[in-house]
Amino acid sequence: MNNEKIWGIAKRRGFIWASAEIYGGASGFYDYGHLGTGLKRKLENLWLNYFLNLGNYHLIDPANLLPEISLKSSGHAEHFTDILVECSKCKHSFKADQLVEEKTGESVEGLALTEIDEKIEKLKITCPNCKGRLGKASFFNMMFPVYVGPKGKEKAFLRPETAQCVYLNFKREFETLRRKLPLGLAVIGKAYRNEISPRQGVYRMRELTQAELQIFFDPDKFDNEIDFEKVKDYKLRIMFADDRKNIKEISCKELTDILPKFYLYHMAKIQDFYVNILNAPTDKFRFYEKAGKEKAFYNKIHFDVELNLETWGGFREVAGLHYRSDYDLSKHQEGSKQSMTVNIDGKKFIPHVLELSFGVDRNFWSMLDLFYREEEKRVVLKIPPKLAPETIAVFPLINKDGLPEKSREIYNKLKEKFDSFYDASGSIGRRYARADEIGTAYCITIDHQTIEDDTVTIRDRDTTKQERVKVEEIEERIRRFMDREKILDRG
Amino acid sequence: MNNEKIWGIAKRRGFIWASAEIYGGASGFYDYGHLGTGLKRKLENLWLNYFLNLGNYHLIDPANLLPEISLKSSGHAEHFTDILVECSKCKHSFKADQLVEEKTGESVEGLALTEIDEKIEKLKITCPNCKGRLGKASFFNMMFPVYVGPKGKEKAFLRPETAQCVYLNFKREFETLRRKLPLGLAVIGKAYRNEISPRQGVYRMRELTQAELQIFFDPDKFDNEIDFEKVKDYKLRIMFADDRKNIKEISCKELTDILPKFYLYHMAKIQDFYVNILNAPTDKFRFYEKAGKEKAFYNKIHFDVELNLETWGGFREVAGLHYRSDYDLSKHQEGSKQSMTVNIDGKKFIPHVLELSFGVDRNFWSMLDLFYREEEKRVVLKIPPKLAPETIAVFPLINKDGLPEKSREIYNKLKEKFDSFYDASGSIGRRYARADEIGTAYCITIDHQTIEDDTVTIRDRDTTKQERVKVEEIEERIRRFMDREKILDRG
Repeated sequence: MNNEKIWGIAKRRGFIWASAEIYGGASGFYDYGHLGTGLKRKLENLWLNYFLNLGNYHLIDPANLLPEISLKSSGHAEHFTDILVECSKCKHSFKADQLVEEKTGESVEGLALTEIDEKIEKLKITCPNCKGRLGKASFFNMMFPVYVGPKGKEKAFLRPETAQCVYLNFKREFETLRRKLPLGLAVIGKAYRNEISPRQGVYRMRELTQAELQIFFDPDKFDNEIDFEKVKDYKLRIMFADDRKNIKEISCKELTDILPKFYLYHMAKIQDFYVNILNAPTDKFRFYEKAGKEKAFYNKIHFDVELNLETWGGFREVAGLHYRSDYDLSKHQEGSKQSMTVNIDGKKFIPHVLELSFGVDRNFWSMLDLFYREEEKRVVLKIPPKLAPETIAVFPLINKDGLPEKSREIYNKLKEKFDSFYDASGSIGRRYARADEIGTAYCITIDHQTIEDDTVTIRDRDTTKQERVKVEEIEERIRRFMDREKILDRG
Repeated sequence: MNNEKIWGIAKRRGFIWASAEIYGGASGFYDYGHLGTGLKRKLENLWLNYFLNLGNYHLIDPANLLPEISLKSSGHAEHFTDILVECSKCKHSFKADQLVEEKTGESVEGLALTEIDEKIEKLKITCPNCKGRLGKASFFNMMFPVYVGPKGKEKAFLRPETAQCVYLNFKREFETLRRKLPLGLAVIGKAYRNEISPRQGVYRMRELTQAELQIFFDPDKFDNEIDFEKVKDYKLRIMFADDRKNIKEISCKELTDILPKFYLYHMAKIQDFYVNILNAPTDKFRFYEKAGKEKAFYNKIHFDVELNLETWGGFREVAGLHYRSDYDLSKHQEGSKQSMTVNIDGKKFIPHVLELSFGVDRNFWSMLDLFYREEEKRVVLKIPPKLAPETIAVFPLINKDGLPEKSREIYNKLKEKFDSFYDASGSIGRRYARADEIGTAYCITIDHQTIEDDTVTIRDRDTTKQERVKVEEIEERIRRFMDREKILDRG
């Protein structure tokens, strides 16, 4: 299937593979190779450029280790748990809800331990490893503790999500950014979770990268601070909790009775990001409403963002939009004894939080899944050119008659402007094939005519059509192709 | 002194502060605010653009947690230690060599435990906290262990340096990148060290960011693979191990008897990066040779890069250039039983490694230190415009007569291209002062003349001179100012 083929390319060409491979690999950990790193960084930059531009929103970069007290306040020390069952015979551990879901095909998020035990008994679920009897379900805290200081007395945790770091910094950034709401603070960085049984490639990693934006706002005002007019006719694709059979296509304005305008506005922006920036096919995108036991108790409103991926067997979560109310700041106010109350025009309140949360690794993988194509004569990765780790490849048609020298000259100029690769080995067909496989957007070939009239051919990856262009016009042509003016210059 | 003033700005304006501040701070951990994050990212990007362009060099992004076995192989599980002494009375722990260095003003790197004990006795060093008697010196491993898996049986460590992750990936990337040397693999990311007593701001952090480039090469060939001609007359500023009184200014070609050409070439590039890209004053830059006991035993050649910083009281290490020979790959070959031998044109060997290692946090701080200026009427951060977290600030002269509307229009266009900030509050003088303090490179003011003839003033931060420019020419003018063509387009 595609899963094996894509992993084959990912490992062979430099996208991603198991960490510490030469020592047999580390379960749940992955290393990004040079092409994967390029694609991942571009994905992160597109995300930043899109979402930070929606308002008074800023990127920050807090430490990854958090002192225990802060995660006691937030509730993670007690509640950031998964449900574990151990085989009474072979002693292997399993994530209990995963076993039940695999048996029933249904989500069992939010069940109590006794309910899980009942399900396991009723469904006659045994150990997937040895068929032994499974023991009683128990809670397992997924945070990694780390002991700091020469005597290891300062207990800390690797952050399980970037969000908490932002809440700890809210008050200072609120002051720094002149006491205005809405205020958005984003983090792109690692989060760590001791997954009981990491599987399915990058879907459950023990060390993952998140891109999260926390928007702090006044709940009485936010609806009027976003430009709802602009999205009111935007049709959202949603699977609601009360109808798990159908995806509804429904405009924002038709949903204002059941969801706040500010929430709908951000749904529209997220869908727009996937469909128009990442080029995800519309029918492979949906929001999935979480309700009742499925959603965390601190979320007032919670929709997952799901993509339909062949390699993961259907719609799977890649992002989420969470209305967390004032839960987090209140908890940290309680735990730290520092006031999180703001005073704006005489109104004193604890700001509410809307969280946009993206799994960078899952979205990275989604790009490989969604854009992998097997065509008649080639394998091609049709990722958006803006995401291609190598934007340009430069080829001399043959390795003589001055073509390599001319090619190097052109390459040296282009690599100052674009991520470029020079390739002179093998037949031209083989070079195109290698470039297609990793999604290189434009192949520039230098031939004998180049020497005569200073033109080259530019081959478009998706159509394979070639166009002759003056050397001096290459840059402008490629920029036009890429519609690069959409991309900000964030240094 | 400047240290307090710079920290004042850093905290008040959004550069950097102690992590988990609302819980009293976490010693050795720092959070970057929105301006600090901007500056840090630009510094990282300049580094990438400069050093990855020197050859067949690529950025990768490996996991931060490494299985214990890999760090046993590398020697870190045994040798990544500091020397600790504990006060027999108050039980505080201290970094022993730091105590000796503070007393004598001399480096004592590489001393044996008994030698440290002798020094402490002879110099009558007592506990800095309570004057109590200090106990015997002992080794303290600075790595943070983390226990992975549901039963915590898989011991791992947070990486103490990014380098080891690169060595684990060498063989696969060598294959992926078609078996060519020299091959460079860079990582920018976190490293973790359980410092005994983190002090001096960001100089010793427990969670730090490194930018490291490992160049794998054939020691018989590398001298001829770099372009030594280009640097032969470049004058390096060096403090040699046999003369700790003087900094010598000496050209690369005069040093070829004592240092390999490839090493000199990279020294020249590093100095060029500091002096010409980061604009560090030449007299505040030097290489500091490490010899004998000062250098790690696996380094054949080791020079620190030092900057003279007022806030750190003199020349301090901010980077290093390490010829690590084939030590690391040999160790991992031994530990993993996987061959690290390459075969190039029939020659079989384990590649040697040249490591360029930069402390991102230290270099970040250096920018604040080196470019902080108190002038007659203002405080100004004269960082290179390319590093300014806000390239542009846009001001309406007054908040009426259509100036705010026109300003917003101009701002909205500019923010698509540059990191821009809109500020309409307070007098124009106060707005200039706020922009100067954080190093904003260009202030654009919209006044009544703008409405008449579509021109604005651009004020240069460093000279405070203003120039009138057509609105349509702002972008080009700023790009010319910034010499932005030097900056690559890495997405």
